[in-house]
Amino acid sequence: MPLTQNVEIVCIGKELLIGKTLNTNAQWLAKRVTTLGLTIRRIEVVSDNIDEISFAIQEVIKRNPRFILTTGGLGPTFDDKTLEGLAKALSLKTDVNKTALKMVKEKYLMYALESRMEAAELTPYRIKMAKLPEGAIPLRNPVGTAPGVKVEHQNITIFALPGVPREMKSIFEDSVVPLLRQFSLDVTFFEASIISTGVMESEMAPLIDDVMKNNPNVYIKSHPQGTELVPIIEFHLSTTAKDQTSARNRVSNALVQLSELIHGKNGKIKPVKSLT
Amino acid sequence: MPLTQNVEIVCIGKELLIGKTLNTNAQWLAKRVTTLGLTIRRIEVVSDNIDEISFAIQEVIKRNPRFILTTGGLGPTFDDKTLEGLAKALSLKTDVNKTALKMVKEKYLMYALESRMEAAELTPYRIKMAKLPEGAIPLRNPVGTAPGVKVEHQNITIFALPGVPREMKSIFEDSVVPLLRQFSLDVTFFEASIISTGVMESEMAPLIDDVMKNNPNVYIKSHPQGTELVPIIEFHLSTTAKDQTSARNRVSNALVQLSELIHGKNGKIKPVKSLT
Repeated sequence: MPLTQNVEIVCIGKELLIGKTLNTNAQWLAKRVTTLGLTIRRIEVVSDNIDEISFAIQEVIKRNPRFILTTGGLGPTFDDKTLEGLAKALSLKTDVNKTALKMVKEKYLMYALESRMEAAELTPYRIKMAKLPEGAIPLRNPVGTAPGVKVEHQNITIFALPGVPREMKSIFEDSVVPLLRQFSLDVTFFEASIISTGVMESEMAPLIDDVMKNNPNVYIKSHPQGTELVPIIEFHLSTTAKDQTSARNRVSNALVQLSELIHGKNGKIKPVKSLT
Repeated sequence: MPLTQNVEIVCIGKELLIGKTLNTNAQWLAKRVTTLGLTIRRIEVVSDNIDEISFAIQEVIKRNPRFILTTGGLGPTFDDKTLEGLAKALSLKTDVNKTALKMVKEKYLMYALESRMEAAELTPYRIKMAKLPEGAIPLRNPVGTAPGVKVEHQNITIFALPGVPREMKSIFEDSVVPLLRQFSLDVTFFEASIISTGVMESEMAPLIDDVMKNNPNVYIKSHPQGTELVPIIEFHLSTTAKDQTSARNRVSNALVQLSELIHGKNGKIKPVKSLT
């Protein structure tokens, strides 16, 4: 078990499964959650299909993370099926949530006012955005229309966020971060990278082992950017510690040791790039 | 069940779970497999941990896809654990595969020759890249060192590909595509997009339903790029058909109908962008 609380991300949308869309949402959430001091254990991508969504969420629940974050599928169109899928996974009905309906209604009243058009009618497609699983709590969408959704299930808190990146980020910062902070166990994630040239990854492998043995809390990952013949390797060092200074010191110590070993193999090192 | 054979992608690497790396491999594979006429059902991202990899692959096997493609974790360093995880998932031992060892050995002989260095020694870290699950077949790596791996399990063919994009793509084209083509049922995937401005997504929702009812084989997905108040929406239309002409005609018919409905709402349309 990791030191920190587990989080899983479920991205919903056929556009991700046909390769139309690059999953920048998953990367953004993973980075943000990691920086907050929690651990992303899994990322899943599933299609806009109630059964697929439901099945995927049930599988995630079996793995018992503390939080589940879903992205996508909260809008007004037929393919926005996340809340139905989530309800099915939890054996809940969906129903129009009064608070959510008020949020949606106010948005369209404002749009009508600002655009001086009569567009405030609550059509079934607009009401759909307020149909939540029973007991769910709608989350304010500061920059869009469809509310985010929070559902508690056993010991798991599930947040359903939109797929539009701007809206997803906004609801995440507004409604998810305050809760995640309470579970981040006051730990800090720290990372740094160096790039070496002139030493093969297979030659570096035993040296990485040595540095990791000496620095048991630092995780070192090599990312080859060249080939074995013309080796360019990024070494990414990261740790999670109680405070920023400890985290930074740990990574620095490991960096110094690794650099000496690279020099010992006649490798060259590009300046350290701090990532956090 | 879809018309086409199911494929699942499992991406292995902590760098994806901490948001360091954007998962371009998954998008590339998803696009390529879809274009070949098969269906990506799921994408999973898991950490470099034997138990996590094994558990994830067992979950995938339960969903019974025709193919599993893994990326990442085939190199010489301690965190390259894909083959051990795969072997554990299938209750197989790992052992040095003679063909794989020959492939690795020849690479280092070539490197030594080209760099005029004595670097051909087969260290345990180099031999590691040739340790495959029993019965697995190594796949030639045209641009890197670690071979790809193919394993047959029940009715599922599993391909383990490297995480370095250039190597992943090269082995995919060289060893995976020829097999996938045999299972692509001679279908063609065709897609096109238009962008509309001036009509809210919630107003378009019932119109999308109408067009999809009239064109049952065309999938239309709306991707809002603006807001409800200043709406800019990309409509992505796609289909899978027996031949390119049928696929193109289907999408064209649906596009014409959708465009008329957008104009009927006083919306504007940017020129059709053909994606395939």
